[in-house]
Amino acid sequence: MAQKSVTIDVTLGSTFVIESDIRGHKVVIDQPSTGGGTDAGPTPLELLFASLGGCIGTISRLIAMQKQIELRGMKIKVEGDIDTDGLLGKPIEGRMGLEGITISVEMDADLSDEEKIAFLHEVDARCPVSDNLLNATPVGIQLA
Amino acid sequence: MAQKSVTIDVTLGSTFVIESDIRGHKVVIDQPSTGGGTDAGPTPLELLFASLGGCIGTISRLIAMQKQIELRGMKIKVEGDIDTDGLLGKPIEGRMGLEGITISVEMDADLSDEEKIAFLHEVDARCPVSDNLLNATPVGIQLA
Repeated sequence: MAQKSVTIDVTLGSTFVIESDIRGHKVVIDQPSTGGGTDAGPTPLELLFASLGGCIGTISRLIAMQKQIELRGMKIKVEGDIDTDGLLGKPIEGRMGLEGITISVEMDADLSDEEKIAFLHEVDARCPVSDNLLNATPVGIQLA
Repeated sequence: MAQKSVTIDVTLGSTFVIESDIRGHKVVIDQPSTGGGTDAGPTPLELLFASLGGCIGTISRLIAMQKQIELRGMKIKVEGDIDTDGLLGKPIEGRMGLEGITISVEMDADLSDEEKIAFLHEVDARCPVSDNLLNATPVGIQLA
C-alpha cells in the first residue's frame, strides 16, 4: 500500500471568481457572463471534465511506458449534459449533476482498433477519477 | 428543464503533459518530477479537488445571492487519500480512486455556526460535482 494524501485550497471572494494556488500553479474558476461571472476561467464542471480527460491521458502515458507502446499522442473529448434547473434551486426530475459522461479518444499509436479499445478499457479501469465518478464516493462537508 | 451540454477537449503529447483550451482558458496538467513529469501544472486529482471546491464556492455565491446573505468570502479545503499502487497496476485491497473526500469551509458571513452548517448542506446538495461523486455516474469510453 502506497497511501498518498491530496490537499488543495480554493478561495472565493466577493464575486463568482475562485482562486487556487496548487503547488505554485494558479487555477482560476469563474462563470461566463451569461452565468453572472466575468469569464476569468473555466467553470467547475469544465474543470471536472479536464480532470477526467487528464486522468485518462496520464494513465495512458503510464501504461504505454509500462508496456513499451509508442504512444505518440492522444486527443480526448469529454462530454455530458446537465439540467441546470437543479443547481438554481428549481425542482427537477433527474439528478443534480451530469446524467452521464462520454469520453471519446483518438490515439496516435501503431495499434489496431481492437488493441486501442482494449488499451482504453485498461486505462479507464486504472484511472482514479473514473473510479470516483463511476462508483459512489463519500463526500463530507464541514465547518473548519 | 434547462438542459446544457458541457464539452472539453484535452491533448496528450509525448510526455505526461496534457493541455486543454477551454473557451480560451488554457489548462495544463502534468505530474510532478517525482511522478515522472515536469511539473508544468496540477495533477488530474488536484484538478478534481479544485473542481469540487470550485463548485462549492460557486453554489455558495449563487445561494447567497438568492437569499440575500452577505457572503464576503470563503476558504475551502479539499482533502482525500489514495492508494497509488492501484493506478500503477499493482494489486490493492481498496478502491482505485480516493476512499473519500473531506471539504472543510471557513465562511466570512454574519451567520451563526448552525446557520453556516445548514447553508453548507444546502450548497452541497445543489452542487453538481458533489452529486456526480456521491452517486454513481455512468462514464463511457470509446474510440473516436
